[in-house]
Amino acid sequence: MEVLITGGAGFLGRRLTRKLLERPTLTGPDGRAQPIERIVLLDVAAAPDLEDPRVGCIVGDLANPALLRHAVHSGTGSIFHLAAVVSGQAEAEFDLGMRVNVDATRALLEACRTLAKPPRCVFASSVAVYGGELPETVVDTTAVDPRSSYGVEKAIGELLVSEYSRRGFVDGRVLRLPTISVRPGKPNQAASSFASGIVREPLNGERGVCPVAPGTRVWLLSPREAIENLIVAHELAPERLQGRRTINVPGVSVTVQEMVQALERVAGAEVAKRVEWRLDPTVDRIVSSWPGAWDATRARALGFTGDADFDAIIRAYIEDERPRFAG
Amino acid sequence: MEVLITGGAGFLGRRLTRKLLERPTLTGPDGRAQPIERIVLLDVAAAPDLEDPRVGCIVGDLANPALLRHAVHSGTGSIFHLAAVVSGQAEAEFDLGMRVNVDATRALLEACRTLAKPPRCVFASSVAVYGGELPETVVDTTAVDPRSSYGVEKAIGELLVSEYSRRGFVDGRVLRLPTISVRPGKPNQAASSFASGIVREPLNGERGVCPVAPGTRVWLLSPREAIENLIVAHELAPERLQGRRTINVPGVSVTVQEMVQALERVAGAEVAKRVEWRLDPTVDRIVSSWPGAWDATRARALGFTGDADFDAIIRAYIEDERPRFAG
Repeated sequence: MEVLITGGAGFLGRRLTRKLLERPTLTGPDGRAQPIERIVLLDVAAAPDLEDPRVGCIVGDLANPALLRHAVHSGTGSIFHLAAVVSGQAEAEFDLGMRVNVDATRALLEACRTLAKPPRCVFASSVAVYGGELPETVVDTTAVDPRSSYGVEKAIGELLVSEYSRRGFVDGRVLRLPTISVRPGKPNQAASSFASGIVREPLNGERGVCPVAPGTRVWLLSPREAIENLIVAHELAPERLQGRRTINVPGVSVTVQEMVQALERVAGAEVAKRVEWRLDPTVDRIVSSWPGAWDATRARALGFTGDADFDAIIRAYIEDERPRFAG
Repeated sequence: MEVLITGGAGFLGRRLTRKLLERPTLTGPDGRAQPIERIVLLDVAAAPDLEDPRVGCIVGDLANPALLRHAVHSGTGSIFHLAAVVSGQAEAEFDLGMRVNVDATRALLEACRTLAKPPRCVFASSVAVYGGELPETVVDTTAVDPRSSYGVEKAIGELLVSEYSRRGFVDGRVLRLPTISVRPGKPNQAASSFASGIVREPLNGERGVCPVAPGTRVWLLSPREAIENLIVAHELAPERLQGRRTINVPGVSVTVQEMVQALERVAGAEVAKRVEWRLDPTVDRIVSSWPGAWDATRARALGFTGDADFDAIIRAYIEDERPRFAG
């Protein structure tokens, strides 16, 4: 069968692709293991570093229904919907965020609806759906109350994936992912970009700017565990979800100050000193509206996993992305 | 200023119009009382019984952006967005429900966004946004988990009104209304239609069919109180909402069996005997997914009111709609 990954040329998409290429099979729409014949990456740019005869790219605008009809067809057994306009950009460009995060998600679900066998579809949602007055630990039944455009758009996407699943148009699974840290590469327009930058840049010998207060509590997941969990979500038998399609994935709860302390423990005081505190009120407001932790009992019972602590997250980043530093 | 009422030709819309016509003023976008110069009813049909020089009708499809641009203009100071495809119909006609309940709501908010002064906009949401495993009493922070297309569409509408308000495109207020009972007139395609029919039809000397189990608990509000609360919502100063635009309006919690007992107390055993129990699994499933009560502490503190009990609701119906029966 064919696997479609939206946002497939992004960091998580490429990493998921490499992981899927190592697997002999993935569960198909009929619930049985099927060989992965082809992985199609749908994104605004081509993936640069994936040379495998099974991987193909479709480059274009996800919100274009004609492109989606081309990308989703009778051979599509499985979809990972990772494409999104990130939080900072969705706040700055409202119409763009609505078009990609809401309209394209709905168009993708509509494309699934045309298929005879509803494909499995894993939708990456976010900590940003929560906001407002929050309990110390968010639970599965805590109301979403997003305080950013990105959060609103993801919350609408969650409702759509759940409803299209209830209707039998798709077999959807919504993963509420903690903030992913440490991402390699360059900063992006996510309000949470600093949560990678304050580790990545200092390890590169550069200044890492932190735009939020040291006491701000964040809820983190490593890219390794994010990829594992996307696959766990895909492989879950639908009856195990008991009508509730949204899963709050395990994370690590730390303050930003504790992140820097962990960096010092793992990489030394010289590296940790490269973190520069420079408050950005817009970023601080958005990040502070997110929960610093949630209860992941249900997710763990379903087989989802998190990281041990932030030290382990930094070590995993060094192993995966900076092996020379580790040596 | 001009007041726009979507769904204005419906029962609640006409009743709201009559109530507004009795008022000298309504609070405008600048927070000051303004005379109501004109009330425009936007609906798929004209309102039959409203002859007043201040009332005008626009007949057409709410999901048509050109019609909305015509209906929403610089003189529009106030909007009551009541138009909806009801629950039973939204379940039967998925695309129609999405178009009217989601797309038209968004188009209306987009029309507001073009105005120099963001108008006040009261959006009627519903008990149907809740579902799944619910606590005995739902609270403001209970997660919505709709189990009907109507509920999903209203939940998306709530998110849109809140976000467009946060952005300053509109000054929105979302009222989660209990099931309205007793509505006059004919049954409609709402799953909750029986909650009026089992009182109205027996009072008319006809059989009233109840499609849900006697023990099903429902959360009810009279049309009188619904209208009062729509106006309370409109008149609230925005700062009193403290960033949380959605309000769970007070209701009366009764089982369907208790509704029939109240009918017997108010109208006699002969009338109550005209209720016929005939289970409809689809209706029963939808209605059972809704909460039978929620905590309305915040709403009451903000000035919203409910009915004393279901006996009072029946008596109000008789006074308003069947004065001869009362005499």
